[in-house]
Amino acid sequence: MRPAKRDLVSIDDLSSAEIMELFRHANEFREDLRAWSHLCRGSIMATLFFEPSTRTRLSFESAMLRLGGGVITAADPQTTSAAKGESLADTVRVVGGAYADILVVRHPQDGAARVAAHYAKVPVINGGDGAHEHPTQTLCDLYTLWREKGVLQGLDVVLCGDLRYSRTVHSFAYALARFGANIITVPYPGFEMPQFVLDRLDREFGVRASAASVGELPGIAGGENSAAYLTASRPHQLALFTSLSPVHLERIDAIYMTRAQRERHRGESTANYPRISRASMASEMMRDARVMHPLPRVDEIDYDVDDDPRSIYFQQAELGVPMRMALMAFQLGSIRLETGADAVGAPARQTAAVRGLRCRNDRCITNGEGKLYLGAEFWLVTEWPPRLACSYCGQEIDAAFVGSATTERVHRHDCSDARRIRSENRIFFESEEQARVAGFRPDEPAV
Amino acid sequence: MRPAKRDLVSIDDLSSAEIMELFRHANEFREDLRAWSHLCRGSIMATLFFEPSTRTRLSFESAMLRLGGGVITAADPQTTSAAKGESLADTVRVVGGAYADILVVRHPQDGAARVAAHYAKVPVINGGDGAHEHPTQTLCDLYTLWREKGVLQGLDVVLCGDLRYSRTVHSFAYALARFGANIITVPYPGFEMPQFVLDRLDREFGVRASAASVGELPGIAGGENSAAYLTASRPHQLALFTSLSPVHLERIDAIYMTRAQRERHRGESTANYPRISRASMASEMMRDARVMHPLPRVDEIDYDVDDDPRSIYFQQAELGVPMRMALMAFQLGSIRLETGADAVGAPARQTAAVRGLRCRNDRCITNGEGKLYLGAEFWLVTEWPPRLACSYCGQEIDAAFVGSATTERVHRHDCSDARRIRSENRIFFESEEQARVAGFRPDEPAV
Amino acid sequence: MRPAKRDLVSIDDLSSAEIMELFRHANEFREDLRAWSHLCRGSIMATLFFEPSTRTRLSFESAMLRLGGGVITAADPQTTSAAKGESLADTVRVVGGAYADILVVRHPQDGAARVAAHYAKVPVINGGDGAHEHPTQTLCDLYTLWREKGVLQGLDVVLCGDLRYSRTVHSFAYALARFGANIITVPYPGFEMPQFVLDRLDREFGVRASAASVGELPGIAGGENSAAYLTASRPHQLALFTSLSPVHLERIDAIYMTRAQRERHRGESTANYPRISRASMASEMMRDARVMHPLPRVDEIDYDVDDDPRSIYFQQAELGVPMRMALMAFQLGSIRLETGADAVGAPARQTAAVRGLRCRNDRCITNGEGKLYLGAEFWLVTEWPPRLACSYCGQEIDAAFVGSATTERVHRHDCSDARRIRSENRIFFESEEQARVAGFRPDEPAV
Repeated sequence: MRPAKRDLVSIDDLSSAEIMELFRHANEFREDLRAWSHLCRGSIMATLFFEPSTRTRLSFESAMLRLGGGVITAADPQTTSAAKGESLADTVRVVGGAYADILVVRHPQDGAARVAAHYAKVPVINGGDGAHEHPTQTLCDLYTLWREKGVLQGLDVVLCGDLRYSRTVHSFAYALARFGANIITVPYPGFEMPQFVLDRLDREFGVRASAASVGELPGIAGGENSAAYLTASRPHQLALFTSLSPVHLERIDAIYMTRAQRERHRGESTANYPRISRASMASEMMRDARVMHPLPRVDEIDYDVDDDPRSIYFQQAELGVPMRMALMAFQLGSIRLETGADAVGAPARQTAAVRGLRCRNDRCITNGEGKLYLGAEFWLVTEWPPRLACSYCGQEIDAAFVGSATTERVHRHDCSDARRIRSENRIFFESEEQARVAGFRPDEPAV
Repeated sequence: MRPAKRDLVSIDDLSSAEIMELFRHANEFREDLRAWSHLCRGSIMATLFFEPSTRTRLSFESAMLRLGGGVITAADPQTTSAAKGESLADTVRVVGGAYADILVVRHPQDGAARVAAHYAKVPVINGGDGAHEHPTQTLCDLYTLWREKGVLQGLDVVLCGDLRYSRTVHSFAYALARFGANIITVPYPGFEMPQFVLDRLDREFGVRASAASVGELPGIAGGENSAAYLTASRPHQLALFTSLSPVHLERIDAIYMTRAQRERHRGESTANYPRISRASMASEMMRDARVMHPLPRVDEIDYDVDDDPRSIYFQQAELGVPMRMALMAFQLGSIRLETGADAVGAPARQTAAVRGLRCRNDRCITNGEGKLYLGAEFWLVTEWPPRLACSYCGQEIDAAFVGSATTERVHRHDCSDARRIRSENRIFFESEEQARVAGFRPDEPAV
Repeated sequence: MRPAKRDLVSIDDLSSAEIMELFRHANEFREDLRAWSHLCRGSIMATLFFEPSTRTRLSFESAMLRLGGGVITAADPQTTSAAKGESLADTVRVVGGAYADILVVRHPQDGAARVAAHYAKVPVINGGDGAHEHPTQTLCDLYTLWREKGVLQGLDVVLCGDLRYSRTVHSFAYALARFGANIITVPYPGFEMPQFVLDRLDREFGVRASAASVGELPGIAGGENSAAYLTASRPHQLALFTSLSPVHLERIDAIYMTRAQRERHRGESTANYPRISRASMASEMMRDARVMHPLPRVDEIDYDVDDDPRSIYFQQAELGVPMRMALMAFQLGSIRLETGADAVGAPARQTAAVRGLRCRNDRCITNGEGKLYLGAEFWLVTEWPPRLACSYCGQEIDAAFVGSATTERVHRHDCSDARRIRSENRIFFESEEQARVAGFRPDEPAV
């Protein structure tokens, strides 16, 4: 019997124990990549790439071929039926039926992968959906670091460069926090880690930031630098710096470099963008450090650093193949993950009922083609004050007003009447006006 | 020994018994799509798509991979050697030699598939050639309906929407007539079934139209509707309405919906285009009806109809894979069709000799690149009055003048001298002038 | 154990004995193309085509599938990461690692294949790099001719048409010379074989030209034609025309026709370009001749010549598949070539040290993206006068000044001081000025 359908839309769809099991299998596959062509014989992977990404696509295709399966590809947006006006939901229902046994979807709209997962009969992998997630990149980054260091917990990892627009860096930060690594942010000025990332690190993993400085890193950070140190502060977790006092580091375990995401910038200059050179590698700080990069690089790592044994960015790409082999063999039911009771799994999510409230992210698929066939759908991030996140793109929104489905009355969240509504009856609104349009009466004259 | 080369340029290339045998094999393949990867191991399919069509291409590629074969693809017109000025004939001779064991060709010019079949050493499948044919789509439609209803003969099938420009609907109509189903046309006003389709239905299958009305179909057809009922009128065929008296239907077996082919329209409005909604599905008429659509849909079927068990449009796409597996396994000699004596086969075609007469379809490949290397070629549709059809694109033409190859005299078809010319000596002309240019003398002063 | 990595950047990378062994294997594969799908099972070929070429790509893909391997393809420059600014070196390190076991690279810059071979861990095949080389085309041409004639040595082969811009013709000429065939050039006026090709034919193979005429070849060459006859003149080689006296031929073994490379022309007219017709084929000259063409043809061979048994241009394409199967099976270690002591191998090349001297070919990759990460690199074509060739694109350059690495003095090559510098200490310069910039002192006031 085939296993229940397992999609990978977000890295949260995998428990930590499952991730470690995937790493174990990836190690096994890597021993001899050519030895597994019996494992998924007869299976077909379809890559539906509505946005170009040769590297990701080739990595998946290689992985499936190495498992002995077949590959069908719709890689050029101009040759897809999209030109005739077909929705993602329809495409995915056609291709994710008899055509293919697993889908990899890349799409420019945030949340598209969740839509694909919803409509396909077969497992879906998110190959990057807009600015939302790219979970297999994160798995590969994590896997590479884990292989190099033998452990993730307690590592000191510098994230460097454009921390504002790089989706890759955000996902990697969540993953590091989840596995108990510490993060040092060394942003290019003006490209700091966004507040919503810091909020989520705090909320989900109890990670707080303190001011920090790192030793001399020529070309990356000077002596007087203003880095931040992000580490778990909850008492039940191991953490060296629970006091959040200023931190100074003299060695690091890894530096994760990112290119300036110029295609998302709005004219900001990137002069003096950090650059890893031979001189950087010679610093004392870097003695045990691994240099990582999601690739493609532009010029933020010098070519003459490539041969340094601490440079592992080409390994990241290389390890993507066995990692994706493990993932797909798991999703196709060809391998089993021995996870036992899995305490560290993804947080359970509670759906939030809304009326009239829509996601405010104009790149979210619910505001794109989804308008034709998708309702808005949210889950509750925090209960009081009520904060919702779009189920598709993850964008958060404050819902300051709470209505009761039974009485059709609405209250501000901070009034006691609001809290008295039983949770299954709560309807969330952004404003009294929105509630009124939906037919709800305010309890009193508005404050 | 390998079987004789069997091309599928037109659905007429398969006998009815062969089609039913392909359905039987498709059923078998469908039981477990992953179980057949030994069947065509070592074979290669090339898809040559000179016009984009992801769905068709992916369906073929999936089918071949599920048979264990390999796939090579030239899908983007801009990356083909066509840019260097190569003809289809040359491309097909190169690729349809050692490169591949079977070719699927999609091309914008009418009749291109026949050219490919002529020049390739290996079997060719028409994946859509201009406005000419797309036979595997028809096979899939027919197969889906047959699976659902267990029979084709005597079914009442509504064809709805743009019946004028949809090649798919024309081909499906011929196929329904061939298998003895009845057709009810419910066109969007101004987009009626063209006369040449009605003529062919009559000529080949003895199908005549009578005025008809169908019961209430909200969003599709009102009570006062003016449908047409097309049914076989020949005495030796089973038919309930041989009198061609007005017909009223209160139930139907299937409705085949098509999108407005806007890319072929000339500015016609499509306001109030028919649309299948939940309300349509609730009508009494639709109780046993299946809803079909060749996809992609635009908005002619509401999304909330998708989950209705009578909606089978996604199944049409899904069944395309086992259907194409059966077809290709047959063409590659991996399965045999047990057809016995096949009485219902394609009508034999008699070639018509011409001099100077050319196809009048300016999208026909004989008027395109074929001018370099193809002669005009016609077959005789009806003998008196002489009506010819282009062997490539099927477009018909009246040939009012008949010459004798031995006497080099030409006569009007309706004079007795014309009929006295032995059939092997007849040369057909559109006009006396054309005959004169070819060196023929009119018998008398022109009337 | 896997064999040492063998790249095919230039045809010179294979010894003559290896080439003959590949032909032998190709013959074996050709017996039944579908019988070898066990040979490279588990291996993956990546085609990286930065420039379109459907024919070459499909031929390689077919070959690898027939060997039982898998194929991944990045064929559209616009869907590659190049759009994000990635270098060829980086792409090749990523894809030529775990993704694929062999790479085929086509790239618009001269010398790109050498760069790919340098950075990839796996064997690289040059699928055409700018105007540099396209060695598998040459292998296929040679293989086809050898199959037809049973021998190469002593054949009289006409090269016809655009001999100036056709890379294919240049490579074929070198290969013919290497295997002892004689070449008759019949260029379209103004498109003669370039001097650098003639120089190399002389230097490497002792081939000299004498004036020649060929018998009547209607549409190709008239009676008063001014062809050239290129044949080996060295005494130790078999040659009928060592005197280089004018030659007249009354029969030929093959004619290799090329299209006008219009995309590289600068407005030259190609009116009355040679054209092979039935009349050409009927001439006495052509009685035993084979007609070859690298395809795609435009109009330089009439369609009605296609069925002539002496036309072998479609066979050239067809034989490309078994030839490429043999090559890749060899590179992947699945077959061994029994070459014994291989006397006729590629000439050993001596590296030439330079300071400041760069390749003068502005389409060379060292002057393109390579500026970021590649140094200039040259080998010594002739010692006195010193002539260098770029290691990447092969373009030659005169280096009239020779410096000594120990004394940092520079001399004109024709002064005795230059010759006295030990060869391992020689540094080559184009000019005294270039040497001066590099810190070298002229010995005397410049002459």
